[in-house]
Amino acid sequence: MIPATLIALDWGTSNLRASLLGDDGRLLESRSAPGGVMAVQDGRFAEALFALCGDWIASHDCPLIASGMIGSRQGWREAPYLPCPATLASAATCLTTLEIESPQHPAAKPRLHIAPGLQCIDEQGEFDVMRGEETQIWGAALQGERCCVLPGTHSKWAWLRGAGEISRFATFMTGELYGLLTRHGILGRLMQFDDRPDALRLDEFSRGVELGLARHDRLSHTVFAARTAGLMGKVTAAGLPDYLSGILIGAEIGAATQTEVPPDPITLIGDDALCRRYEIALHLRGLACVRAPDGTTTRGQWLLAMAAGLVGTAR
Amino acid sequence: MIPATLIALDWGTSNLRASLLGDDGRLLESRSAPGGVMAVQDGRFAEALFALCGDWIASHDCPLIASGMIGSRQGWREAPYLPCPATLASAATCLTTLEIESPQHPAAKPRLHIAPGLQCIDEQGEFDVMRGEETQIWGAALQGERCCVLPGTHSKWAWLRGAGEISRFATFMTGELYGLLTRHGILGRLMQFDDRPDALRLDEFSRGVELGLARHDRLSHTVFAARTAGLMGKVTAAGLPDYLSGILIGAEIGAATQTEVPPDPITLIGDDALCRRYEIALHLRGLACVRAPDGTTTRGQWLLAMAAGLVGTAR
Repeated sequence: MIPATLIALDWGTSNLRASLLGDDGRLLESRSAPGGVMAVQDGRFAEALFALCGDWIASHDCPLIASGMIGSRQGWREAPYLPCPATLASAATCLTTLEIESPQHPAAKPRLHIAPGLQCIDEQGEFDVMRGEETQIWGAALQGERCCVLPGTHSKWAWLRGAGEISRFATFMTGELYGLLTRHGILGRLMQFDDRPDALRLDEFSRGVELGLARHDRLSHTVFAARTAGLMGKVTAAGLPDYLSGILIGAEIGAATQTEVPPDPITLIGDDALCRRYEIALHLRGLACVRAPDGTTTRGQWLLAMAAGLVGTAR
Repeated sequence: MIPATLIALDWGTSNLRASLLGDDGRLLESRSAPGGVMAVQDGRFAEALFALCGDWIASHDCPLIASGMIGSRQGWREAPYLPCPATLASAATCLTTLEIESPQHPAAKPRLHIAPGLQCIDEQGEFDVMRGEETQIWGAALQGERCCVLPGTHSKWAWLRGAGEISRFATFMTGELYGLLTRHGILGRLMQFDDRPDALRLDEFSRGVELGLARHDRLSHTVFAARTAGLMGKVTAAGLPDYLSGILIGAEIGAATQTEVPPDPITLIGDDALCRRYEIALHLRGLACVRAPDGTTTRGQWLLAMAAGLVGTAR
């Protein structure tokens, strides 16, 4: 058996993903289960963890590190929000550590280290927060003036400088708004959905992006175009979902880049189909972008564990 | 029995409200039922109508006029969208008329006249539509340069000139977004709701309005403040619903007034509790407003019926 040095947990709202890492941080094995924070009942986080990787814990005398919503108030133990500007080194000094006990595995008492979230305050005095994305960003190991976009339910735009210092960031509820408007709202009633995850109607999506970019300053009005375009026969029922997706992504990009054009190219971190939409939309905004390589979460967790001295310090 | 001259139907998505009007347009009786367009199955609109006011139809040999979603594609008969600029006189020339038949009342074959909706095209070539609000606006009998706001699920801002000519309008999905975000979204999870319809936490609402006014240009980001303010203890769980309501209403007002400050005072048409929120928010934007008197829908329907020659022409 190859000796493992770290068990890295990407523990979000819906899913728990576990990675077993070797002494150079390379991936030995990975597993996942729908054991996210919202799926675990009555605080039975230890149970969910041992169910997924109790055998790893029993076989390898190594620490565990976790990032994501597991450190939220609804998670296992609330981890603090580190104020921006924040670096991986500063995050490594404020991991929240707990000793895990399991009735089924009384001998195994490994230590779990939960990464802090980040907070920032904008010029209006409004807070913003992230949990988990900071670890992905650090996993991308970016240098110098950069802008990172992590598309998703709550998209994050992070501005970096120096050696991976996150100076500020902003959240856009783009994915959640799309889900709410299509699944529960009146806009969805005119729509016909394509269930293939990679399906994308480029023409309708692009038209939506152009509208969202131009009209991000009045989004609660702009999204109504996804109804009127359907009523007036300007966009087909099958094209309306991507038209709305384009409006929302365009509005996000328009808003995020209105006062400051990010340093080129923007780094995209996220799932392939969603990053493709952002690539198209950023291009329509005249902005170049690159994709971060896969595995940023695990890589960030490994770097965090190294900086905290949990694993060998040799890079 | 006082002779009736018109049965006026305010037939929307959720409700059917019927008013029996005398020869001077004064209200003789009114009734309502949850027989809105979405509640009527299999196109049984005649059944819903006769259930609510079959006795009126049998007793009074008078026409019926209807406005609202009953004229939509999902309604009884699709009525056209009249292009803006539009006047009450032009709407009166394009009522959609049908003869009603009921198996239960074979002798009664009254004519139902459905008001057209309105459409307009903005400078970007995007359509907007309304159905029902145009009749309310005409019922307010405004003269000259005016701006009218009808708060609701889909708020409408209409600009008028001359003798009640609606030159253009814009829809904001403010009420729907509030409902989706609080009932189905993550923001609602931190919130504690007050079920009293008139409850309003003025301080939190006003803070939300100020934020929405300042940050209407990035709404999908701005609404996230209703999560972070809760997480950071800046707004209590009980204050968060009104904080979000303020953000959305503030963003609507900020967006609607950013390129053109409406002629003062703005006329508000709608239910009392909601209009009160808009009064407060418009005041924070430095704009004066007045309330239209109650009964604008019925008054507009009466004026429309007069202009169409369905009832006596003497005013």
